[in-house]
Amino acid sequence: MESLRLAARKSGRSEIRIKDVVIGGSAVVLIGGPCAVESAEQMQRAAQTVRQAGGRILRGGVYKPRTSPYSFQGLGVEGLRYLADAAAAEELLTVTEVLDEESLRSVSGQVDIIQIGARNMQNYQLLKLAGRLDTPVILKRGLAATVEEWLLAAEYILAGGNARVILCERGIRTFEPSTRNTLDLSAVAVAQELCHLPVIVDPSHAAGRRELVPALAKAAVAGGADGLLIEMHPNPAEAKSDGAQSLTPEEFLRLAGEVETLARAVGRSVQPVARVRT
Amino acid sequence: MESLRLAARKSGRSEIRIKDVVIGGSAVVLIGGPCAVESAEQMQRAAQTVRQAGGRILRGGVYKPRTSPYSFQGLGVEGLRYLADAAAAEELLTVTEVLDEESLRSVSGQVDIIQIGARNMQNYQLLKLAGRLDTPVILKRGLAATVEEWLLAAEYILAGGNARVILCERGIRTFEPSTRNTLDLSAVAVAQELCHLPVIVDPSHAAGRRELVPALAKAAVAGGADGLLIEMHPNPAEAKSDGAQSLTPEEFLRLAGEVETLARAVGRSVQPVARVRT
Amino acid sequence: MESLRLAARKSGRSEIRIKDVVIGGSAVVLIGGPCAVESAEQMQRAAQTVRQAGGRILRGGVYKPRTSPYSFQGLGVEGLRYLADAAAAEELLTVTEVLDEESLRSVSGQVDIIQIGARNMQNYQLLKLAGRLDTPVILKRGLAATVEEWLLAAEYILAGGNARVILCERGIRTFEPSTRNTLDLSAVAVAQELCHLPVIVDPSHAAGRRELVPALAKAAVAGGADGLLIEMHPNPAEAKSDGAQSLTPEEFLRLAGEVETLARAVGRSVQPVARVRT
Amino acid sequence: MESLRLAARKSGRSEIRIKDVVIGGSAVVLIGGPCAVESAEQMQRAAQTVRQAGGRILRGGVYKPRTSPYSFQGLGVEGLRYLADAAAAEELLTVTEVLDEESLRSVSGQVDIIQIGARNMQNYQLLKLAGRLDTPVILKRGLAATVEEWLLAAEYILAGGNARVILCERGIRTFEPSTRNTLDLSAVAVAQELCHLPVIVDPSHAAGRRELVPALAKAAVAGGADGLLIEMHPNPAEAKSDGAQSLTPEEFLRLAGEVETLARAVGRSVQPVARVRT
Repeated sequence: MESLRLAARKSGRSEIRIKDVVIGGSAVVLIGGPCAVESAEQMQRAAQTVRQAGGRILRGGVYKPRTSPYSFQGLGVEGLRYLADAAAAEELLTVTEVLDEESLRSVSGQVDIIQIGARNMQNYQLLKLAGRLDTPVILKRGLAATVEEWLLAAEYILAGGNARVILCERGIRTFEPSTRNTLDLSAVAVAQELCHLPVIVDPSHAAGRRELVPALAKAAVAGGADGLLIEMHPNPAEAKSDGAQSLTPEEFLRLAGEVETLARAVGRSVQPVARVRT
Repeated sequence: MESLRLAARKSGRSEIRIKDVVIGGSAVVLIGGPCAVESAEQMQRAAQTVRQAGGRILRGGVYKPRTSPYSFQGLGVEGLRYLADAAAAEELLTVTEVLDEESLRSVSGQVDIIQIGARNMQNYQLLKLAGRLDTPVILKRGLAATVEEWLLAAEYILAGGNARVILCERGIRTFEPSTRNTLDLSAVAVAQELCHLPVIVDPSHAAGRRELVPALAKAAVAGGADGLLIEMHPNPAEAKSDGAQSLTPEEFLRLAGEVETLARAVGRSVQPVARVRT
Repeated sequence: MESLRLAARKSGRSEIRIKDVVIGGSAVVLIGGPCAVESAEQMQRAAQTVRQAGGRILRGGVYKPRTSPYSFQGLGVEGLRYLADAAAAEELLTVTEVLDEESLRSVSGQVDIIQIGARNMQNYQLLKLAGRLDTPVILKRGLAATVEEWLLAAEYILAGGNARVILCERGIRTFEPSTRNTLDLSAVAVAQELCHLPVIVDPSHAAGRRELVPALAKAAVAGGADGLLIEMHPNPAEAKSDGAQSLTPEEFLRLAGEVETLARAVGRSVQPVARVRT
Repeated sequence: MESLRLAARKSGRSEIRIKDVVIGGSAVVLIGGPCAVESAEQMQRAAQTVRQAGGRILRGGVYKPRTSPYSFQGLGVEGLRYLADAAAAEELLTVTEVLDEESLRSVSGQVDIIQIGARNMQNYQLLKLAGRLDTPVILKRGLAATVEEWLLAAEYILAGGNARVILCERGIRTFEPSTRNTLDLSAVAVAQELCHLPVIVDPSHAAGRRELVPALAKAAVAGGADGLLIEMHPNPAEAKSDGAQSLTPEEFLRLAGEVETLARAVGRSVQPVARVRT
């Protein structure tokens, strides 16, 4: 893979610093929150739970890439405010997905991290735009992308000058119908072998059902993931999207405790909130 | 699939008229040309071959979605001129791929059909933009998209007001390594059963090797495809991309003859050039 | 693939003669019949239809490999008699699936061709036993077998001394849910390129729904298949297995006519019944 | 899945006792050894390493299902003696793969556990024969088997009267070329949710490269696997099969220590050798 000029691992692996949070270091970073931002109250409750669980980053989608044009498409800028306010109150960083130039522009300066989703992993124009930003990027693996293609997509961002890219494995498409996707933890190991960037795991989209999320989250940490991106909703039954795969706050807190134990068992930690405003 | 409000087949299937070419009617439409536009001369020779073969549409990429940021990215507007001039000389229509708002704007009014590639099948912003145009769209199936998702992507364009969408099957990702992708001709039959839009087939990207293209092209026509999108290059050995899967002009002409015989055997025709400037 | 000592194609492709039927020659061979043999009358009616359609071989399973141990497992030797009697009355050859040494022994001398199913493609003991027989073998591709593995499975039979092996593509497993399997017609072309043995296609198991069978059958013939193995049941609604994918006699006859036209369009024929008892 | 009459989980999960080893209990069981038995000395060294690592079961193939008929097919009964002697010296149990009635008969009474491999998961005759035995069976998931089909294959064995079945996930076939197979840890969680039988994981065949085995083994234990089946060879560079994915004794010992730590972190243990001859 000679094309991985900037992404290829030469020796050690990179730590990516975002304000007071480090991804790819000794700590396993926990990111949580709902699939879609729905209301100020929903986000406040989500943020409180993430903070209580030892998580450092609050997620919430305001621009949703929906398979059907008639599905809920997100709250847009209004949602962005709910996300930012809730995170600020709990001293959390924020991450939200961008879909295109317009959404990229609208979230600019409003979030700490942008996410490029699985369906846009090979949206090269978006990758190039993200490469020109100073904002860190979580780059999800495409549904049917090989590890090599995923790393080349990261290379697009790096080549543009943005060095803070975090890879995120979220399951691939296979013939197995009992899960929404098949989480590919080998890909985490392979990506870490070939590339110096941190690799986190989203067990929620892989599983598609909350019952399976804890097992996959724990497996990911034991398998070397640098962080977890987990869907949690104050009231999954009423979620506007992905309710079936969202943990309740109670489940999220329990899982966070188990993850902390496991992180220690593999010589890592779960980074505590530094309680320093940055 | 209640979400296919506009794409769902109620009774018959739709014919899409683009100038004097009809796709989805009794004639099987042949589209040919190189993966990437490289020079004026290359396009002239390609256009002459397409015309001679009874093809009606000239293809050529000027904005290339490349897996690596360091690969040839296309000639841009310069290439667009070569494509348009070569097509005009042979009374062919033109199709080229767009990647984003910028390329969409630059090809506007310069080509007869735009193509949205496999990697962008769920780039919803691009689909929405294409929905606002008056230009017909060839929408390729994503590498790992289900037929349902493909039709929902078409629905995005239709919902925007653009009724002229042509679906294109181009192979899906499977475990089989002997071909670049696995051409899924069942998907053509399923798409035609569920949706009224024309469905064409690109055997070149599916096969990845020119030796296999004729068999797959013929299978596609016998299986009911409304057209073929075939890569052909005046000199495949020197092609800047996808040379291995490009037919030579001679192979393209031979295949066109075989396709014509087959089209008749399934009660269709290959539309002759009307020799009417539009 | 140095291991294809006997299966590799050196120059031309092989014709396999079974009594007065030749597979792999200029004629496309039509094999039809129900998934499972259920009664004497069912088989008589199936045989009449196959004969009328210009088919040469009657299929019918008497030992069924069922996913559940509680499903109908086949009539065994009793079914074998129904199959043989029905075929004899219409001057057809017979083919049935074998699962193991015991079923192999019981069908020995009772059928003209044995079939090794997809699930047993890598049952090496069964392949070795089949290699010692003088009976021709239809070897189906495994659900997730690469073309290379399929040809190596054929090599097991050839290496045992049985030269009459017919390959059969029947669809592979992919993420696409709208069909039971994804018919891989590229595999037919690849197998014919690498191996001298005839390659036939089973569109019924690939599609899983009768509506899709004609399109796939026609595509297969145009794509170069040497024959078709099609499920047809006198009364699909009452079939004990695979009813949904079985054609009715009327559909089978109509398809046979279309296949004959297509076969001619690709320079082949459909072999007429020689009307010679053998 | 009404057909899972015996395999379906009603309440708790089953523990399977084999002499003094319990699979599916609180302890995570470690099984190690080479892909193929090659010599007495090789097996002695492997057995010593397994014992030293806290493993309880020695694996070694004597009948090998090889993709090519010209590859090494195993030592047969001679190999069986090497396996048994080496295990006895270290107070380990033994497991070996059976392929058919003949190999089943030859290993009868010679090993503690038989293994049915991925390629034979739907060899129903073999499943039925295994169902009549009193010997526990490790049933590997097929390369492209759904979890439902895998559990139904187990049901075949249970329905025959043999209640001691251990499921083993070993990777499925996907489009990803960077690993031999894609380990599907979701399948472990799903199988444990639907079925009461123990589920172990074989990370070696999934990964295909020893570098990836530790990460996958640890992920499996954290994800809830009841045991690990790991290839280890005293001298991988000279292994007659699967050398690239075999751990060295040193790597195996190191991994066993890490697994023990992880097992404790998820509330389990690694069962120590009881030092009681049975």
